[in-house]
Amino acid sequence: MALSNPPSPAMQKDMHVWNHFGRVISKRERHHQSNLCCHSSSTTKESHFLRTPPISSNSLYEASSFTSFHGVGCFRKLLPRRGFGYYCLDTKDFSASCGSKFQLDDVIESQQFDTDILNGIFEVAYEMEKIEKNSPGSNMLKGYLMATLFYEPSTRTRLSFESAMKRLGGEVLTTENAREFSSAAKGETLEDTIRTVEGYSDIIVLRHFESGAARRAASTANIPVLNAGDGPGQHPTQALLDVYTIKREIGRLDGISLGLVGDLANGRTVRSLAYLIAKYQKVKIYFVAPDVVRMKDDIKTYLTSMGVEWEESSDLLEVASRCDVIYQTRIQRERFGERMDLYEGARGKYIVDRKVLDVLPKHAVIMHPLPRLDEITVDVDSDPRAAYFRQAKNGLYIRMALLKLLLLGW
Amino acid sequence: MALSNPPSPAMQKDMHVWNHFGRVISKRERHHQSNLCCHSSSTTKESHFLRTPPISSNSLYEASSFTSFHGVGCFRKLLPRRGFGYYCLDTKDFSASCGSKFQLDDVIESQQFDTDILNGIFEVAYEMEKIEKNSPGSNMLKGYLMATLFYEPSTRTRLSFESAMKRLGGEVLTTENAREFSSAAKGETLEDTIRTVEGYSDIIVLRHFESGAARRAASTANIPVLNAGDGPGQHPTQALLDVYTIKREIGRLDGISLGLVGDLANGRTVRSLAYLIAKYQKVKIYFVAPDVVRMKDDIKTYLTSMGVEWEESSDLLEVASRCDVIYQTRIQRERFGERMDLYEGARGKYIVDRKVLDVLPKHAVIMHPLPRLDEITVDVDSDPRAAYFRQAKNGLYIRMALLKLLLLGW
Amino acid sequence: MALSNPPSPAMQKDMHVWNHFGRVISKRERHHQSNLCCHSSSTTKESHFLRTPPISSNSLYEASSFTSFHGVGCFRKLLPRRGFGYYCLDTKDFSASCGSKFQLDDVIESQQFDTDILNGIFEVAYEMEKIEKNSPGSNMLKGYLMATLFYEPSTRTRLSFESAMKRLGGEVLTTENAREFSSAAKGETLEDTIRTVEGYSDIIVLRHFESGAARRAASTANIPVLNAGDGPGQHPTQALLDVYTIKREIGRLDGISLGLVGDLANGRTVRSLAYLIAKYQKVKIYFVAPDVVRMKDDIKTYLTSMGVEWEESSDLLEVASRCDVIYQTRIQRERFGERMDLYEGARGKYIVDRKVLDVLPKHAVIMHPLPRLDEITVDVDSDPRAAYFRQAKNGLYIRMALLKLLLLGW
Repeated sequence: MALSNPPSPAMQKDMHVWNHFGRVISKRERHHQSNLCCHSSSTTKESHFLRTPPISSNSLYEASSFTSFHGVGCFRKLLPRRGFGYYCLDTKDFSASCGSKFQLDDVIESQQFDTDILNGIFEVAYEMEKIEKNSPGSNMLKGYLMATLFYEPSTRTRLSFESAMKRLGGEVLTTENAREFSSAAKGETLEDTIRTVEGYSDIIVLRHFESGAARRAASTANIPVLNAGDGPGQHPTQALLDVYTIKREIGRLDGISLGLVGDLANGRTVRSLAYLIAKYQKVKIYFVAPDVVRMKDDIKTYLTSMGVEWEESSDLLEVASRCDVIYQTRIQRERFGERMDLYEGARGKYIVDRKVLDVLPKHAVIMHPLPRLDEITVDVDSDPRAAYFRQAKNGLYIRMALLKLLLLGW
Repeated sequence: MALSNPPSPAMQKDMHVWNHFGRVISKRERHHQSNLCCHSSSTTKESHFLRTPPISSNSLYEASSFTSFHGVGCFRKLLPRRGFGYYCLDTKDFSASCGSKFQLDDVIESQQFDTDILNGIFEVAYEMEKIEKNSPGSNMLKGYLMATLFYEPSTRTRLSFESAMKRLGGEVLTTENAREFSSAAKGETLEDTIRTVEGYSDIIVLRHFESGAARRAASTANIPVLNAGDGPGQHPTQALLDVYTIKREIGRLDGISLGLVGDLANGRTVRSLAYLIAKYQKVKIYFVAPDVVRMKDDIKTYLTSMGVEWEESSDLLEVASRCDVIYQTRIQRERFGERMDLYEGARGKYIVDRKVLDVLPKHAVIMHPLPRLDEITVDVDSDPRAAYFRQAKNGLYIRMALLKLLLLGW
Repeated sequence: MALSNPPSPAMQKDMHVWNHFGRVISKRERHHQSNLCCHSSSTTKESHFLRTPPISSNSLYEASSFTSFHGVGCFRKLLPRRGFGYYCLDTKDFSASCGSKFQLDDVIESQQFDTDILNGIFEVAYEMEKIEKNSPGSNMLKGYLMATLFYEPSTRTRLSFESAMKRLGGEVLTTENAREFSSAAKGETLEDTIRTVEGYSDIIVLRHFESGAARRAASTANIPVLNAGDGPGQHPTQALLDVYTIKREIGRLDGISLGLVGDLANGRTVRSLAYLIAKYQKVKIYFVAPDVVRMKDDIKTYLTSMGVEWEESSDLLEVASRCDVIYQTRIQRERFGERMDLYEGARGKYIVDRKVLDVLPKHAVIMHPLPRLDEITVDVDSDPRAAYFRQAKNGLYIRMALLKLLLLGW
């Protein structure tokens, strides 16, 4: 197998990109302290790169040894260049789809996302939707190992992340209840646990009961950390899947009218959604909440500062008739403590039922972060505008996209 | 790669079968709402089919994109036909082993099985036995994801299902204790949970503490549901593996003599076994039970109606000398409540020990659904007629067969 | 594809080895009762062998059917020989790297290892280090299924074993809390559980709360058993990774000076480490422990009998200045019962901090079995001589090596 001509200028540019590939690589590099590999993948083509420590410039590296790792590869020979990085030669199938770095090292909180990143993630999520529907057996993340470190149980979120990893060909180390992790019980710090677990995996999905835990884990870890909820803190993948669902269901995010209903005081999801949707143009938000759980002032102030029109209403039907999206939430009983009277009063006040459907525009949808109790009646489920199970499914696509982006880049 | 001649009549017939493929497809279709794929596999040959929504009749679909999903495929080109379905062209390796639909959408209860289906399943289970012994790395279910949703722990059953899936190349999302599923704890219905989990997987194995739960799950799910035991209700895979074990050990089911021993009142397994074995010809059943846990009248009446001879006996040795199969069961302490005196009285009454082996015919076997306490003495284990661990292993083959049939058809 | 010449004498010798392959095979043989396969692998080449029951001498066996199981194979044809075993023909890529039997059937206790086996394991572990760093997607154990049967939770050990299996391409059946295994709760013996689980897997990793449980499991199982800690008994993989870490960090084991610090009375790890390191030449050991948890006499007597110099000291700084390795351990609060005053007194006595680093030789390292509390201060972590997280990572390589050796041989 003879070498072909030297790399074209276009390829050289890719190699340059590669040489400055940045963070995803450098996390793995610090971690493995030696050879690195990465691949970038679009739906139809895959290109692979392998980087080793500086070796003499006339030695050749057989790509075959690692293409068996990432599935079918398109490189035949890799010619080492000065220091790190490789020319790629003899690659007639090659298309210059060199993966470029994902801007984020870790996914910790909604504040990390601007509209550019959001739109990019949504495009990848849409690709993932096609991958999952057409060929469930993708090998994109073959050879990668994800550790799900759950300090409080959340089967829905855990299964969604694990499904995302496996749908892309990756593998999972799972912990349903890391709080009973014998080491944590013995007094080990989260940081020490992370430094151990990062030795066994390539990416960590962390669910913790303490606000800020994900940030601490990320600053310790030499591999990417994904926050799957940290107590009263953030749950960024839920926020992303909510915005993505609006985009997929309504077709746009600018100019959207959104009714947030239910427990707006305690609902982490509605607060994050309000925060993210405010980044888009001409958004209108209606708050429909029982008095005891009204939206707090910090979000209202923020919305005003972002130029978002908002108003409070006690008329769900009127709001429903004007909205593109009704986002219903569960009244969180666990936040009421002994005040069951307040809970019961708040609980039945705003129910999404057939009467709401009757006034809801045809193009509009009803969303809910799930689980629901009876704040949406079961007879709503069969209406095409009931989007909440599609919304749950979108969580899979968003998580597939984030895993791909954090491990492989764009 | 040129197209070959149009499909032969035999192929067209297959395509016809395919066009009416039915339920397995339609579940996935409703689920994915777009493209569908399926494959059928015998031990040595595999054929693959891909169905997409109606497209124009002269467009071609490259099979390669999905054969990478299901492993080595034998189709080269697929030519779309009217509406759904495809001609298959240019397939010199093709053998018309078109998978036909499995009669069942879900596996919920023993009543679903007639002798035709039973015998068919047993043939597939026997194939699975060969696959597991000769090539543990089958890729038959590669790309498929099974969710094990266990609302009560049952490690034996769970490991058996998960091993079955992995021995066929499939992947597993596991939940050891879904009852603490935060959503269930928050009051989510089983139906809502199923509609979420079906978005993350291709088949659900459900163990639940409520009778009828599996049926409710199946009527909600757009993907197949396998009942792995629903409280005091059914545990159909146990019943199937019991009958399969008799067939494998004795060589036939018609004309079998069967001694059911122990807790016949509470034992779900003996009741199901009696129910299924009655479908075969010239079966004779002996009941050997302490008075407090005698077989109930409903099964006796049913057996008589099916033409099965049965009698009750208190002489285990005499029964053992006449039987092809002694099926021993554990006295279920948990059903006696406060009456420990009754439990202790029942417990030691009928023990399978060396004395039973002495009178048991050479060709006969001893079975037990496990776990056992001391109702079979440990010195029996080394006798070749002790079949209970082989019986447990048969559970693997039966579950491999059911997963294959529900996901791929015959 | 024509057959090449008959096997060379060197190959015949390999075949002879193969015919007497012994235990690993015979466990699988007894288990599967029919065909057997095995492969041996060095870093760059892999050779595969398949054994079937005696068949006629002129039948040929196509290796392709099993190379698809074990990945890329180098045999083209296998020619059956008298009885069991095969000539290998037409194998131009063949190198006589025929796997020979691993001396151990199971890994149960430190006493199984002499220096020859230890050095062999360490060589394989070093290969595993390269495999994990360069190509995380090894297929060496593809098709193998490991059951992790944990009767007490130990997430660190469990994740480490599961990562090891998955890094080599194997699959895992996992049980986080087998003590609630419904069968164990119902009174099933460990032996019965093992005989069931061995039907679903190829190797069992057992963590149990009773000393001696692993040995009982191993004597029952027809597949290899790995002890992942049995109560107050043994935890041999921890002992191996400790010795391996010294070898990797310092470069040798003979002539090593070792300071064992902390809870020497209760620490299973320091006792095992002392036991194993004593097998090497010219070892010097310092014991630095609070009075209530001093090293016990049995180990001291053993060390003397092995010609190991040892002394007790209460001056951590002086010991640190003379040692190649300071092995710090946690004072085990759970062993003090009500005597919290004794615990508190022992706990703060010997802390590894910057002052220890100041006197520690440049080439020396600090080790710790983890988890740690405050017996090593956090500011030590950034010193290159802090080896404890590398030590935890070495656990992965040791476990990869043992899985490979038990399943595939050398």
